[in-house]
This record gives sequence, structure tokens and C-alpha cells, in this order.
Amino acid sequence: MPSQATSLYPTSFGRPSKIAVIGAGAVGTAVAYAAAIRGDARDIALYDINAEKVRAEALDIAHGIQFTPCGSVVGSDDIEVVRASDLVIVTAGAKQSPGQSRLELAESTVKLMEKVVPALQEVAPDAVYMFVTNPVDIVTYVAQKISGLPASQVFGSGTVLDTSRLRYLVSQETGVATQNIHAYVAGEHGDSEVPLWSSAEIGNVPLTQWGTTLSGRVFGRDLRDEIAHEVVNSAYTIIDGKGATNYAIGLAASRIAGAVLRDEARVLTISTLLNDWHGISDVCMAAPTIVGRSGAGRVLVPPVTDDERQGLQQSAEKLREVARSFGY
Amino acid sequence: MPSQATSLYPTSFGRPSKIAVIGAGAVGTAVAYAAAIRGDARDIALYDINAEKVRAEALDIAHGIQFTPCGSVVGSDDIEVVRASDLVIVTAGAKQSPGQSRLELAESTVKLMEKVVPALQEVAPDAVYMFVTNPVDIVTYVAQKISGLPASQVFGSGTVLDTSRLRYLVSQETGVATQNIHAYVAGEHGDSEVPLWSSAEIGNVPLTQWGTTLSGRVFGRDLRDEIAHEVVNSAYTIIDGKGATNYAIGLAASRIAGAVLRDEARVLTISTLLNDWHGISDVCMAAPTIVGRSGAGRVLVPPVTDDERQGLQQSAEKLREVARSFGY
Amino acid sequence: MPSQATSLYPTSFGRPSKIAVIGAGAVGTAVAYAAAIRGDARDIALYDINAEKVRAEALDIAHGIQFTPCGSVVGSDDIEVVRASDLVIVTAGAKQSPGQSRLELAESTVKLMEKVVPALQEVAPDAVYMFVTNPVDIVTYVAQKISGLPASQVFGSGTVLDTSRLRYLVSQETGVATQNIHAYVAGEHGDSEVPLWSSAEIGNVPLTQWGTTLSGRVFGRDLRDEIAHEVVNSAYTIIDGKGATNYAIGLAASRIAGAVLRDEARVLTISTLLNDWHGISDVCMAAPTIVGRSGAGRVLVPPVTDDERQGLQQSAEKLREVARSFGY
Amino acid sequence: MPSQATSLYPTSFGRPSKIAVIGAGAVGTAVAYAAAIRGDARDIALYDINAEKVRAEALDIAHGIQFTPCGSVVGSDDIEVVRASDLVIVTAGAKQSPGQSRLELAESTVKLMEKVVPALQEVAPDAVYMFVTNPVDIVTYVAQKISGLPASQVFGSGTVLDTSRLRYLVSQETGVATQNIHAYVAGEHGDSEVPLWSSAEIGNVPLTQWGTTLSGRVFGRDLRDEIAHEVVNSAYTIIDGKGATNYAIGLAASRIAGAVLRDEARVLTISTLLNDWHGISDVCMAAPTIVGRSGAGRVLVPPVTDDERQGLQQSAEKLREVARSFGY
Repeated sequence: MPSQATSLYPTSFGRPSKIAVIGAGAVGTAVAYAAAIRGDARDIALYDINAEKVRAEALDIAHGIQFTPCGSVVGSDDIEVVRASDLVIVTAGAKQSPGQSRLELAESTVKLMEKVVPALQEVAPDAVYMFVTNPVDIVTYVAQKISGLPASQVFGSGTVLDTSRLRYLVSQETGVATQNIHAYVAGEHGDSEVPLWSSAEIGNVPLTQWGTTLSGRVFGRDLRDEIAHEVVNSAYTIIDGKGATNYAIGLAASRIAGAVLRDEARVLTISTLLNDWHGISDVCMAAPTIVGRSGAGRVLVPPVTDDERQGLQQSAEKLREVARSFGY
Repeated sequence: MPSQATSLYPTSFGRPSKIAVIGAGAVGTAVAYAAAIRGDARDIALYDINAEKVRAEALDIAHGIQFTPCGSVVGSDDIEVVRASDLVIVTAGAKQSPGQSRLELAESTVKLMEKVVPALQEVAPDAVYMFVTNPVDIVTYVAQKISGLPASQVFGSGTVLDTSRLRYLVSQETGVATQNIHAYVAGEHGDSEVPLWSSAEIGNVPLTQWGTTLSGRVFGRDLRDEIAHEVVNSAYTIIDGKGATNYAIGLAASRIAGAVLRDEARVLTISTLLNDWHGISDVCMAAPTIVGRSGAGRVLVPPVTDDERQGLQQSAEKLREVARSFGY
Repeated sequence: MPSQATSLYPTSFGRPSKIAVIGAGAVGTAVAYAAAIRGDARDIALYDINAEKVRAEALDIAHGIQFTPCGSVVGSDDIEVVRASDLVIVTAGAKQSPGQSRLELAESTVKLMEKVVPALQEVAPDAVYMFVTNPVDIVTYVAQKISGLPASQVFGSGTVLDTSRLRYLVSQETGVATQNIHAYVAGEHGDSEVPLWSSAEIGNVPLTQWGTTLSGRVFGRDLRDEIAHEVVNSAYTIIDGKGATNYAIGLAASRIAGAVLRDEARVLTISTLLNDWHGISDVCMAAPTIVGRSGAGRVLVPPVTDDERQGLQQSAEKLREVARSFGY
Repeated sequence: MPSQATSLYPTSFGRPSKIAVIGAGAVGTAVAYAAAIRGDARDIALYDINAEKVRAEALDIAHGIQFTPCGSVVGSDDIEVVRASDLVIVTAGAKQSPGQSRLELAESTVKLMEKVVPALQEVAPDAVYMFVTNPVDIVTYVAQKISGLPASQVFGSGTVLDTSRLRYLVSQETGVATQNIHAYVAGEHGDSEVPLWSSAEIGNVPLTQWGTTLSGRVFGRDLRDEIAHEVVNSAYTIIDGKGATNYAIGLAASRIAGAVLRDEARVLTISTLLNDWHGISDVCMAAPTIVGRSGAGRVLVPPVTDDERQGLQQSAEKLREVARSFGY
């Protein structure tokens, strides 16, 4: 039977969009599955070096596309499958070797990017690149350097998931829809991240003035710290329980993809190159950023407390040191 | 923090619907994920005997619900989480022991249902029950007997997935959207299933009169057999490549769930108790059936060739024998 | 041919929801059309005293439901069509007689409600009631008194549309998605309404700290006044150009309907009975309110400036006087 | 304030799509409203010679886009607003003068197209063109001649609405979802149209073998004629009751637009240039056609009875005569 055709049109036509997902592991396939169901692109291509696996994963999604707005899902170990993509979402990372430390693993992943990024650029030079691979802020910074592309065109998923977790917890505590919790997590996607409590609002009420929550508490330091702790640690809880986190990050990446491909100009805490943001420069980390068809746009400058600023600067410093240790 | 509230209203109100998914494995979580993204119900509850695992899986979906129309996802090893569900989707099965044959595994699963079904009925006596657990036709038949519920209220996912695979392959071969391929697979969800080629249409053109396909062939016996073979065997291909099939069945189950909870009166090849359907009675197997809020409705009687009828009767006989061998 | 069946189930079942729209004019039909396309309910009933018109309008939408998630749209001049509705949306008002002043028209509308509301309650006693008919704040207050229902069960569309217009204009000025403009209009749906600028944020940046806009300005008093003026006056511009406003209010009402029927707990500036809200009591007017399956919930108390508070109190006073003049 | 920006990208990028709707009357605005709510394109432009009206209509939709996936709706009497559109949907027609016959009105509309089509081509030479203006088959044929564009790039909405009405009525009669009624109306969008009963199926059951319907009848000649009559006449019923038909045609056009812009390869009964279709050539009329990003594709050739074939040929002959009488 013929292979599943991808839409290809003369460039003078606006054409249905195409996403390529690099890496067919638990995260990559969840991204592809969520993007297919949400209809973020007409065509979705999965690329992985494991040919059998990537074909099986793509086929398992493709068999269900009748129940989605998506038009095609294909998988291949041939990088040509990525060609003509509008958005490339990288989820592939180095495999952890026995005894390898987290930092050593990160270094292997950086080395992997030195191979993968130029290969992707060859087939999709005009694509927007979103990195999901951890440590996402380091990987994004390194990929920008490797690619030489404009900073807007290369960003990371940052703390979009952490922000979503924070909103979920505040929603649970207040009974208000997550969509009306306007709170953001900035900085590293990891232990040094900073919830921007001082500018957080529920509807148009500052979080700290919300009053009594469903559990009879107020958003004082204790409750805020408890929530912040749970945001950072819930990944570990989930990994303990199921061995990985993939479903929520799949949805977060799909949400960002939609903002790019539908040119939504949404504010999302992606990881982007900062330039004198609260005094922070030359590092990729999460900050509320306008995301549209050309990628990462204007970075918002919310008011922060001294503590929050200090936390952000420490987060930046930590990231810069790691990048430097890898020669970037 | 307080636990995530489920909507509960006086029964005089029409209220947002609730799905319970039994079993938090690869299939159960894919069902829950797809149903959350597609918005099939406001509340989704995951139940599994592994407390850590089920909480982790539910949390991993819940963290992403901000990006879906869904309102809550909770997981628990306490069967009370199932209470007040409108639709219960059972994906749990017995674990395969080393050396155990497929038939022995099926018998273990039947024994599991003898415990699980009454427990579910206690907390959700009015729910519609959909079984996804394999061998789905046997499990559905047995569950009907155990529960004593009306046949309409207890059905299986049948060949909705196989039908989707068939349409996908015909779509690939013709370039026509899967939504316009009106072809159905009936009978056992398994090796004895029967593609109803004689009544298959593309738009309003009988498949056999389609003419030349994209690959330059016609829908003669060779191409039809090739496609039928691939429908049956693609599950094995996917299992070889990724170890399980879960994404497409997740979407198929979510599709059926939508037909029930939105009372859509859709024609779907669910596994339902047949009563003189092409001469077949007292067996649960897939046939095109109207699916709505009260579950499995009228079974359609498409014209069939003698070969197709014989295939369906053999499929039924095979299923009846297996059920009998388990004492049903 | 048989009439289009509405889903009716035993009350012990969670069942697909039903919306009744009262009044088949430009607004009522736009509400029904938007709700059908967005899938806010399975069943939509249109009621109007003009039998031919209401049947034609319902039929014109019903012919298109194949392209929507909606299951049925029916129209009738028999109030029985409203029975079993979960949400009743009232758009009907008195017809303006020649020479009649706006206040006299309002009084006629109030008299109409004295007949319509009890008639609706007879067939749909448990429904949530949303009033869209203008003057919406007066009509809502009066309807609460007439019905004797709990305040949560009877609310008005308030300034959800005005808030949407405000966000649209700020979005145009900044290039940020409307969904990230967290600004609210409160008070009367009309000339005395108050944009709550002091608590307005773009993402998590206070509007007043946004910096330079796309047109090279800042959100100082001039630009804010200009936008506020346009929010209030755009209705007149649209009426001048097309004779009525209906499409945006149709979407706003459909949005509120979704928040109710999917039990979303969304913050929306509906018109609700205030009780010591910034010192305001015993009047229905718009304030950010949590909207879910039981209707109007907790009213948020955002911080306001003295000017804003004074504006809100004047708005309330104006509304109270009009209500009193009608004997309420 | 700055005007609402349309997305414009280098042509090497896949970019979000844009629809232009020509004519801001009841039909044109319903098309734009439905397309905005369904998210068929990021950008929607309304063009009309009445500047005040077109701005008002666009603004009335734009104020509600916060509640849709759509990004911008603009209206103008400057044809430049159409530039860079991927799909142009023409709903404008000549105004009926007092005493003018239907044929004279059609001729005025043809003369209007002789001006409008070249003007549109100047700003959107690569767009796909869909005509909704009646008499749609004549207008489509004439527009193809005027434009000189490939036949695939210029089609009419044909009997997509009539087909939807037919399915609605069969759905009412059987209780099966419209989505599973695979029946088509072909030929002229008008009195000579032909329901293709002989190839109609419900699920995979031929309509004529359905058995007893909900009203206790069978799909014999009487019931089929009754339904066919109602399909043709329901437009008149709706016009009698509300003065126009606009909502269902709005949804039908939006559905076709989605098939084009998402490159869906859907089978739709659009009006397209026929070439030896059941012996019919050189006329535009409705036939089941594959619709994708390049417009009208392969026309399906369903089996027909002698009566159906004769009906189709008469329909074609009638259309050809009218076209000839206008000099085409």
C-alpha cells in the first residue's frame, strides 16, 4: 500500500501545518497523541533512530485519527520525514548509563544535540524549534548556539508545565477554574524555579487578598511554600508512581504548538534567551513570553519582589554555570 | 490541600457527566487521557488496586487539564472513586503468569470479572458499562451474566478499533478522508473477525466499484485480503514495535464514550448481545449498533454475502465455545 | 414525519443537558446558533410567541447540526418545548411602540417578565435562569423577585460582552491574545459601567506598567478613557451600521452557558445580586463571579480605587432607582 | 487605535490561513460567524461595498472572538482586505429590483460577477474560490469562465446544504445520527435537484432495506418523495417564516471551508465542472466530490438508477440553457 501522503503545496499557498516530533519515547508519543487529538497540525511526523519502535508508535496513533481533526501521522527513522515541518519539537535525549550522574547525562544530551540539531536544520531550516528534552534550559541555550538561528526561532518548553501545576493546585485550593488562575512560575525548569506569587491573581483579585480558601486557610507564606514545594516535587511523586511523567508535558507542548501554529500571541512561560530581564542576560530560562507563529516574542516584565528577583538571578546563575561547564 | 471535588448535584438536575476508568495501565490511562482532551465528561475517575500508580497516572493527566475542556481527573485504589459515574470503562485484566496459555489467561480474567463487576455495581448501579478488556467479546458476555443488567447497559468496545484500522487503510489507498469510508468489521475482536466488504462504500460508491486506487490497483479479492490481513495483524506489528497497543484503543473507547454521554445515536461496531442477527443469537460480538445514552441500542442488519455470513457464524461459534468452556 | 425527539431519561441518570432560549429574534437565534456550534448542550429549544418565525429559525439551525456537536434544535410557540431544560436563556423583550421612551420600554419589558417568568417556572422549576434581555440588570433583579428562586439560580449576562470588548481593544493595542488580557468591566451593562483598570493585568503585568503599546502610547488616562468610551459606544456604532448587535452577545451568552452546563467555576462578570460588595447591596449588577452548574456563586472582591468604587456605587444607585420606579 | 493586524509571513513559512467573505448580508455574516466559532481560519476578512455595514458586522463578530479559536475578524469596503486570502467565499449577489423576474435577477448577478471576479483575482490570484451566491451553479460556471482559473480552484457550495437537509430528515425518521446517514443530493441546487436514493445507506444498510422507521413506515416511494419534497421546499418554508435562510448555509459553507483549509479530502456535494459524469459535461452542478486544499478534486461516480440518471441529465440541461441565455 502507498505510504501516507503529507500535504505539499507551492509555497505561494498558505498550507496546512506540519509538526515533527523528535524522539518516540513516552514524552514524544504523548506530545504527538495530544497534538493529533487537539488538531494542532494537519500532519504529524515522528522521528526516532529506532525504526520499529517509531513506526509502531506512529501507526498506533494513526489508527485513531478518524476520531481527531488530524490528517496524518507517520513515523520513520529517516530524517527526511521531518522535511517541510513548520514546528520541530525535540524530546529526544541521551540514555542514562549505569552509574552516570545527572550532570554527566546532561553532558551526553548536549553532545547528542550537537549532532541532531544540524541534521534537523538541513531538512527544516525555516522551522520553529521547541525543545522539551531536559535539562530544557541548557538544551535550549546550547541549541541556539549550535544552530545560529535567531533566538525567537529556538525556545524550550520551560515552565509551562510547572505553571500549569501551580494553577492546578491553586484551583484545587479555591474551587476556581484553572483558566482564571493567573499565576506564573519563572526561572529554571527544575529545583531553582520561582513561583511569581507577588503578581499572581485569581480573576482580578491578587492571590494574597483572596481570603479564606476551601481548606479554611489563607495564601500566607505557609500555604504558598507548601504549594511551591508540591509543584517542584510532583514530578518526583509521579515518577515514583509510574516511572515517568509524560501526559501533562504532552499537553503542555501541544498547547505551545497551538500558540505557534495558530499564531495566537499567547503569554506562556517558555524558556527563551533573556536580555536584561530583571537584570538577567545571556541565559535561556522561563519567563512569561508572547508566543506566535514566529516563535518566542516579547518577554513580559512583571513586577517582582526583592526575594523573587534574587531567586530568578540565582536560577539564572546556576544555569549559566552548567552551560559554561559544557563549553557554552 | 483538599481533594479534587467531583460535581455532585441533586438528581433532579441534569448534571455534567462522569466517566470511571477501571485499570490504570497503558490502555486505561490512554482512554482517560483521550477522554479528558476530547472533553467526553466533566469528571474522570481512575480506579486501580495499585494505589501509588493510579494516583500518579491521574495526577499526570490532571496537571494538564488546564489545556482541555475536562474539569477533574482523580485516581484512587478506593472503589468509592467510581461512585456516581455515568459510564464505567473497564480495561483491567488478569496479569499473565509465566507459562500461562492465552486461554488460561482469559479464564483468569473471567474470574477477575466475577469479583470486579459486582463491586462496581454496588457503587454505580445505574451506570452504562463498556468493557475494553480482552478477550472483549467473552468478557462482555460474562459481565452481562454476572451483572444481571439489561443487555443494552453492558457492551464491549468490539471492533470499533478494527473498523477504524480498516477505514484508515482504505483511506491510504484512495486518498479519501477516513470519515467518508463507510466500511465495518464485525464479529470477534480477533482473528475470526469479518470485514463486511460487500456493503462497504466510499462516499456513496460501493468499494468494489471505486476503480483505480492511488497505488494503481482495484479493490479485488487480493487487495481486500491484503487489507483484511493487515487489520488483524497490525496489533501484532505494533506490539512487536512498542510492546503494547494503547493510543488507538484509547481514542476508540473515548469515541464510544462520547456517543453514550452526548446521546449521539451513532452507529458503532461495539460488542453487544445478538438476538437472531444473521441467524446468530446468545453471543456478544461486534455488529453495527446504535449507541446512545442508554448504551447499546438497535443492531443494524446490513446485507451480507454467503461468505460473510458464514464467517460471522463461525466467529460466533468460536466465541460461544470459549464462553461455555468458562461455564457461561 | 415524527417531531425531533428530545433526550429524556430517568432522573437517576446523569443526562445530556438542554438549553431553552426564550425569544427567536436576532439575539435569541444568535445565542442558539453559537451554542449549537460550540456544543454547549445536546438539546436546544427555541420558544417564541410567533409560531411561524420560531419554527423557521429552529429549522434553519437544525439543518446545519450535522456540522456541529449538537443533537437537536427545535422551535415552538408552545411553552412545553421548554420543559426539562437545565438552563433557560431569556432574550425576549417588549417591542418598542412609536414615541415610547427607553424607560417606558423598560417598564413594558418588566411587565412582560411578570407573565413570562411564572410560565417558565411551571415547566422548568429547577432550571438555572440567565437573562439577556435589556435593561439586563433591572430585568434580572425583577425576575429574582417574581420567581422567588435563590439568587444563585437567576442571573443576567451582565457585562460579559463589555468585558470581552474591553479585552479585544486592549488586545488590539498590545498584540497580546485576548485570553491573556485579564481586565473586567463591572456595574451596569450600560452607560454607567466601570472598567476596573486598577486591577487589570496583561499576563501578570499590571496594565499601567505595560510600557509602550503597538501604537506608541502608554496606558495612561487618555488611552484608558478612549478605550472605555469605545467599549460603551461600540454598541451604538454597531447598531448604526447593522441595526442591532447580536453576534457577540450570542457568543457571550453561549460562553456563560458552557460555564454553567460544564460546571466550569469560571470567573465571569455576570449580573448577580450583590450583598455588601464594595458597600453595595440589594441590586443586581455585574461583578466578577464564579459561574458553575448551580449558577452564580461567590462574587470576587478585587481591590478598587476610590474613583472606581464611587463609579460602582453610582451605577448601583442608578439601577436601584430604576427598579424602584417600576415598583421593585 | 491601530487596526487589527492580519498575520503575514514570508511565503517560505506555512502560515495560519485566511478566509475572505464577499458580501456582508445575512448569509455572508453567518458564514463568517460559523467559520470564526469553528476555527476554520485564523483570519477572517469581510468585504462589502457598504462600508458602515461591513465594519459593524465584522466588529460584532470580532467582539466575541475571545470565545472562539479565531484570531481576527475585520471588515472593509476596500478590496485590499481580501489580499493574501487562501479561500474566498462569495455570497454577494445583485439586489432584486421591483418587478424583476428571477431570471432577470440572475442575469444581474452574472453581470455583477463580471466585475467582482476580476477584482478579487487581482488581490488573491492563488486563492481557492467558493461561490454561495444563487443561482449557485450558474454563478460558479460563469465565474470559471470569467476567471480563466483551473476548474479545481473555482467551485460552488452546490447541494451541501440540501444533502444536510436530506440527512436531517432521514435522521429524524430513523433516530440515527445524521453523521451515519450516507445519502447525497446531486444536480442543481434548486427545484431540479436529485436525491440519490438508490445509493443511500444508513450505516452500512441500504436505505431501502432499513425496515420500519420511528413513524412506523418504510422507505418506499411515498416516504422518499415526501422527504425529497421537504428538502426542496424547506427553503421556502424558512423564507416564509423568517425572511431568509442563512444559519444552515453558514454552517455548510464553513464545513466546506474546513475541508479546503485543513486539506481533509472529504466527499462533499459541491458544484463543480463535470466532464462525462453519467454522460454530463460542460456544466457546473453538484456531485459528490473530494474537497481538499487545492479545491475540487476527483468526482465520485456512484451507481444510479435510470430515473436518477435521467433526473441528473435534465437538471444539467436546464442549467446549461440558463448559462447559454446569459451568453456563457
